[in-house]
Amino acid sequence: MATRSTIMDTNSFRPEMMGALDPETRSLVEKRDVLGPAYRLFYKNPVHLVRGDGARLWDADGVEYLDVYNNVASVGHCHPRVVDAITRQVSLLNTHTRYLHENVLRYAEDILSTMPGEIDRVMFQCTGSEANDLAVRVAQCHTGGEGIVVTHEAYHGNSALISELSPALGTAQPLSRSMRMVPTPDTFRVEVDGAAAAGLSAEAFGGWMASCLRDAVADMERHGIRFAGFLGDSIFSSDGVFPDPRGYLGPVIEAVHDLGGVYIADEVQPGFTRTGDAFWGFQRQGIVPDIVTSGKPMANGMPTSMMAARHEVLESFAGSIPYFNTFGGNPVCMAAAQAVLDVMRDEDTMGNAKRVGGAFRGQLAGMQPDHPVIGDVRGTGLYIGCEIVRPGTKDPDQGLALALLDELRENHVLTSVCGPLGNVLKLRPPLVFSLADVDWFMSAFERSLSSLGV
Amino acid sequence: MATRSTIMDTNSFRPEMMGALDPETRSLVEKRDVLGPAYRLFYKNPVHLVRGDGARLWDADGVEYLDVYNNVASVGHCHPRVVDAITRQVSLLNTHTRYLHENVLRYAEDILSTMPGEIDRVMFQCTGSEANDLAVRVAQCHTGGEGIVVTHEAYHGNSALISELSPALGTAQPLSRSMRMVPTPDTFRVEVDGAAAAGLSAEAFGGWMASCLRDAVADMERHGIRFAGFLGDSIFSSDGVFPDPRGYLGPVIEAVHDLGGVYIADEVQPGFTRTGDAFWGFQRQGIVPDIVTSGKPMANGMPTSMMAARHEVLESFAGSIPYFNTFGGNPVCMAAAQAVLDVMRDEDTMGNAKRVGGAFRGQLAGMQPDHPVIGDVRGTGLYIGCEIVRPGTKDPDQGLALALLDELRENHVLTSVCGPLGNVLKLRPPLVFSLADVDWFMSAFERSLSSLGV
Repeated sequence: MATRSTIMDTNSFRPEMMGALDPETRSLVEKRDVLGPAYRLFYKNPVHLVRGDGARLWDADGVEYLDVYNNVASVGHCHPRVVDAITRQVSLLNTHTRYLHENVLRYAEDILSTMPGEIDRVMFQCTGSEANDLAVRVAQCHTGGEGIVVTHEAYHGNSALISELSPALGTAQPLSRSMRMVPTPDTFRVEVDGAAAAGLSAEAFGGWMASCLRDAVADMERHGIRFAGFLGDSIFSSDGVFPDPRGYLGPVIEAVHDLGGVYIADEVQPGFTRTGDAFWGFQRQGIVPDIVTSGKPMANGMPTSMMAARHEVLESFAGSIPYFNTFGGNPVCMAAAQAVLDVMRDEDTMGNAKRVGGAFRGQLAGMQPDHPVIGDVRGTGLYIGCEIVRPGTKDPDQGLALALLDELRENHVLTSVCGPLGNVLKLRPPLVFSLADVDWFMSAFERSLSSLGV
Repeated sequence: MATRSTIMDTNSFRPEMMGALDPETRSLVEKRDVLGPAYRLFYKNPVHLVRGDGARLWDADGVEYLDVYNNVASVGHCHPRVVDAITRQVSLLNTHTRYLHENVLRYAEDILSTMPGEIDRVMFQCTGSEANDLAVRVAQCHTGGEGIVVTHEAYHGNSALISELSPALGTAQPLSRSMRMVPTPDTFRVEVDGAAAAGLSAEAFGGWMASCLRDAVADMERHGIRFAGFLGDSIFSSDGVFPDPRGYLGPVIEAVHDLGGVYIADEVQPGFTRTGDAFWGFQRQGIVPDIVTSGKPMANGMPTSMMAARHEVLESFAGSIPYFNTFGGNPVCMAAAQAVLDVMRDEDTMGNAKRVGGAFRGQLAGMQPDHPVIGDVRGTGLYIGCEIVRPGTKDPDQGLALALLDELRENHVLTSVCGPLGNVLKLRPPLVFSLADVDWFMSAFERSLSSLGV
């Protein structure tokens, strides 16, 4: 599995595709030179979006798309309550946390009320990367260690520190010398003592992962590096979406604590009701983290993130090293985040994720007999991974997965891929996704598969 | 000058001040426990703000304050054109740069048009810390070096990488082993070959600073660390505000280039017309950086930042290492940033900064004969440093400076301090500050000085 360059360019427009673009799209794409070579557009035929509403997006020609990808617009694009909250606060005051303001206090209390009582402090930043960067520093300060363990295809952010802990960025990005990796908990492919992981109990599968972690930490310590913690999201989204068997992280976190480390739960992907089982991904695994981070889904697109922690874990860092984030926790971001949280409760996004996500997975699984390229359908709530493979095997078919993405885009459905070889469709729509939206997706998916002859 | 703990707590509320607070303020302050010990409030008697307009702020009791501190609300609190731009875009669409959108392209072109032609690429992030974190990685990738030079009291941000390059954070924060510091270009105190710096030409003062940089790089290389670049804002704001003699950075940047490094201009403080002399701080120094970063003043409080660079400097990083910032360059942040830029042109904030800032410095300097605690008044445009010293000496009087801040706050004027010993009043109001606002400040300043008997 070492042939990919990076996960980041699995679904990307490339300059050699320029010739096929219509003049208006081409002109916009050409103008992006000014952003430099790091910027990537989705699709062979990039989409020029101008409007959003719920799980729908519209391009400049008025074409309507179904959004099956964007978790930032967690309560739906342009949710009126979020728009109102931003509009109201931005007209009143937008300043920082060195003056008193109710918004940050109200939200801090409210978001902590969704977590176990042990997690009793929260700090605000602007991006998930900033939250993870701070979380790792807090973990290192608390434990006196440096070494962090992540999974083999983890992506946790773009700062210097976090990029070195994000193997999914590819081989051009050097990894930290003090980090170690454990294998992806790939229930579709891993065998434990000759038994397929898919059939194992949470204890047995978690026990295997815990022993991988113990090995990683032993190697780290053999190199003189003290263990600080394990950084992982509880559904391993960039690894390819592996939420089950539910509870398998229990033995892993037990091992982390045994070894003197802390567990940083990166909830950017599974948090905020998306799994349908609980508000937080770690809750459906039955574990209590030491540090919790989030970002993307918090404020429906306003740059807002957070790092919550047990006070005794936070103390050593926050009591000695100054940290001020100018925009973090500002009244406008907090108003947006509060509106998102209110909407999640009032519209029961957790119940919707469970109900609609369950139906979605059921319909996808129902297609497997007729479409053997669908190797596996897994997920929880509105976070679904769908493996595209060579029929009759577990061999990833990235080429077909990418062709499917482009077909789906032509059928006005937006999504993307994940996993080490970019062959896993990542179906992660706004949480207001409905059963009718599932029907739209399924019919576009059928058309796309059949136009590709699979 | 090693007695301070950190610059971050020079103007901070501390728990032992709790007893003096009114019940409402006390209750809000107590609730902040949930944010942990890293959060700091300004003032012995923290301010509870609820509304802003231009350079004015109002607290919960309706008391009006003059804002002489906040550069985030660069075109004034709640500027109607910025509010409108945010409101309009947030109701339409807020997504990311993997789809096409005009806002990011229009703003990218427009902001680059304010810079020298050599700087022809720009990438967007959410905070100044993220911009500097990326800039240092770009500089390291381009030069193949690791070593960064900063000034002795520099503050460039809060990520793991940038905290290690920010000596102003104090001694609890370890500095990077590969960084070196040059002295603060303190024109009030430094002597060069026995001559006071204040009287020196830009060439002579810059030559001294360049030789300090050469020494720092020689020491770095003696330790086997290759030089990557110099990171500095061109008015050295956290060092205590040292913009003159105008042009003194010329010899310094020449040395940086000679030694194979790049110059990263951190424009978070001097950029966006604040100096009154030019749009960017580096322009008034007559230099062309290799990389330019900004954040705070870009979008009037929307979390928005950028890293601009020469394409040949960016290439090595951006051509090989994936970088995606989910919220960076989103349509709402770009709409806000565009509105700020439009307002800066239409309302001539540069001309206003020059005119009002000049009058402001003139009036402050005029007070020196009667108030010998004012040791030095310096600055450019609406960035002014005012040294509070023991009369007849250049010894910093931090205690008096902090007392003055609290007096000014009681006189409804908000500002803060900077410099290694926290004795320099940092006067940095929104750019719409008027001559009438200067009068308000001067009269509150007189009252504050006289109530302290100085």
